[in-house]
Amino acid sequence: MEQQRITEYSHRYFLAPGECTPEGEMPITLLLTRIIEVATEHADMWNIGYSTLSADNLAWVLSRVSIEMTQYPKVNRKYTFVTWVENTNRHFSFRNFKILDQDGSTLGYARTIWAVIDSKAREIVDISRFTFLKDVVSDHPCPISTPSRLLPVADDHAKKHCFKYCDLDINRHVNSVRYVELLMNQLPLELYQSCFVKRFEIAYVRECLYNVEVTLNVDSSTNDVRLEIADDNGATHCRARILLEPRSSEL
Amino acid sequence: MEQQRITEYSHRYFLAPGECTPEGEMPITLLLTRIIEVATEHADMWNIGYSTLSADNLAWVLSRVSIEMTQYPKVNRKYTFVTWVENTNRHFSFRNFKILDQDGSTLGYARTIWAVIDSKAREIVDISRFTFLKDVVSDHPCPISTPSRLLPVADDHAKKHCFKYCDLDINRHVNSVRYVELLMNQLPLELYQSCFVKRFEIAYVRECLYNVEVTLNVDSSTNDVRLEIADDNGATHCRARILLEPRSSEL
Repeated sequence: MEQQRITEYSHRYFLAPGECTPEGEMPITLLLTRIIEVATEHADMWNIGYSTLSADNLAWVLSRVSIEMTQYPKVNRKYTFVTWVENTNRHFSFRNFKILDQDGSTLGYARTIWAVIDSKAREIVDISRFTFLKDVVSDHPCPISTPSRLLPVADDHAKKHCFKYCDLDINRHVNSVRYVELLMNQLPLELYQSCFVKRFEIAYVRECLYNVEVTLNVDSSTNDVRLEIADDNGATHCRARILLEPRSSEL
Repeated sequence: MEQQRITEYSHRYFLAPGECTPEGEMPITLLLTRIIEVATEHADMWNIGYSTLSADNLAWVLSRVSIEMTQYPKVNRKYTFVTWVENTNRHFSFRNFKILDQDGSTLGYARTIWAVIDSKAREIVDISRFTFLKDVVSDHPCPISTPSRLLPVADDHAKKHCFKYCDLDINRHVNSVRYVELLMNQLPLELYQSCFVKRFEIAYVRECLYNVEVTLNVDSSTNDVRLEIADDNGATHCRARILLEPRSSEL
């Protein structure tokens, strides 16, 4: 079926006022929501989406996300996500995204790395079973750098947090977007008014559980902010990077 | 322009897996997001939407929301929001919603009350200036009861909360949906697994400010849970009601 094997998939959206940041832009959290949505839609077209996999207790999970933007979609404008798979191996699918403004200009790119987990066995499964994946790889360019190494973060004033009901997704895991929201919330409003997020990276290491206290380590001593969510023993749940750039240079 | 004066507006959506609750249903928070979205779209068609009003520093704000559902939209299904204005007066617009499943069956209704505020003067403006509003009132039935009286809530174990960056909307107010999320998070996961939210009500009284500590009063002694967000002096920011019904009676 030709329709199921298209290598590039795109979805056009409209940025409603109710979805925007105080700066009238698309928030990183919505950007990640759209990444997950269009990835799911594209996988659905290949019959390896949520419905097919969940019948076998399998689910795609995000391992890494790197987003780099020159501008964000703006209020009351249309924008488009284009997605394609750059590469796959036994464990991971490397899926990229291009984000375009309604006039067709490029706003930014994202790189993501996905795995498939067996939710009963709680382990990563071999995705070479999806034999056609190697045939749908696209050579669409993605001119942003691959994920950088995210080191542990020290913080003498670490805060505590508990994920609650609205943070949980359909698999009863903490929704990938909620980690990002929590991390973004560690920086003050004034900083987002003077700077925009030039690059955002997150590495999901080990899931947080409902109502279990976690520790938030933040190093915001430079514009290259490093963040980590860890458990009480210091083991990492996720690490992230928020690279800020002054807004004046963009406008 | 005939097109601008249609009394009923509808928008069809698809419930993606990434948007669902652990129960595989549409969350109340997304339901409210859609309410705000289709209300904005309908107002846009009448040229009294976000773009037009924001030029005069005006904005529609939610005063009351009452939602009553027999079922929620389910994962990987389409659903439709239909909206119309039931009534208006000098201060408020009474806008209702019907939520339909993809097979056309009724899932529930919502009643909302909106005001227009002048964001510079920080006061409610007279909406009788929108003279055509009285001509676009619809007699579409809305068979759920009007908002009930929400009394103050006493709580000897009140928690504290601070709204952060990701809670802010384009007007730098706490997003209406974020109050609901915070309130829903006061009840445990197990309760949502055994019960569904039959009716949800919220009265927005006075906005919360960024990074200012508020108090959460919750009375969950019955299935008719009462909640309140108040400031340190006990003045109300909002009051809400979560009426739970055992799931067994629904399935």
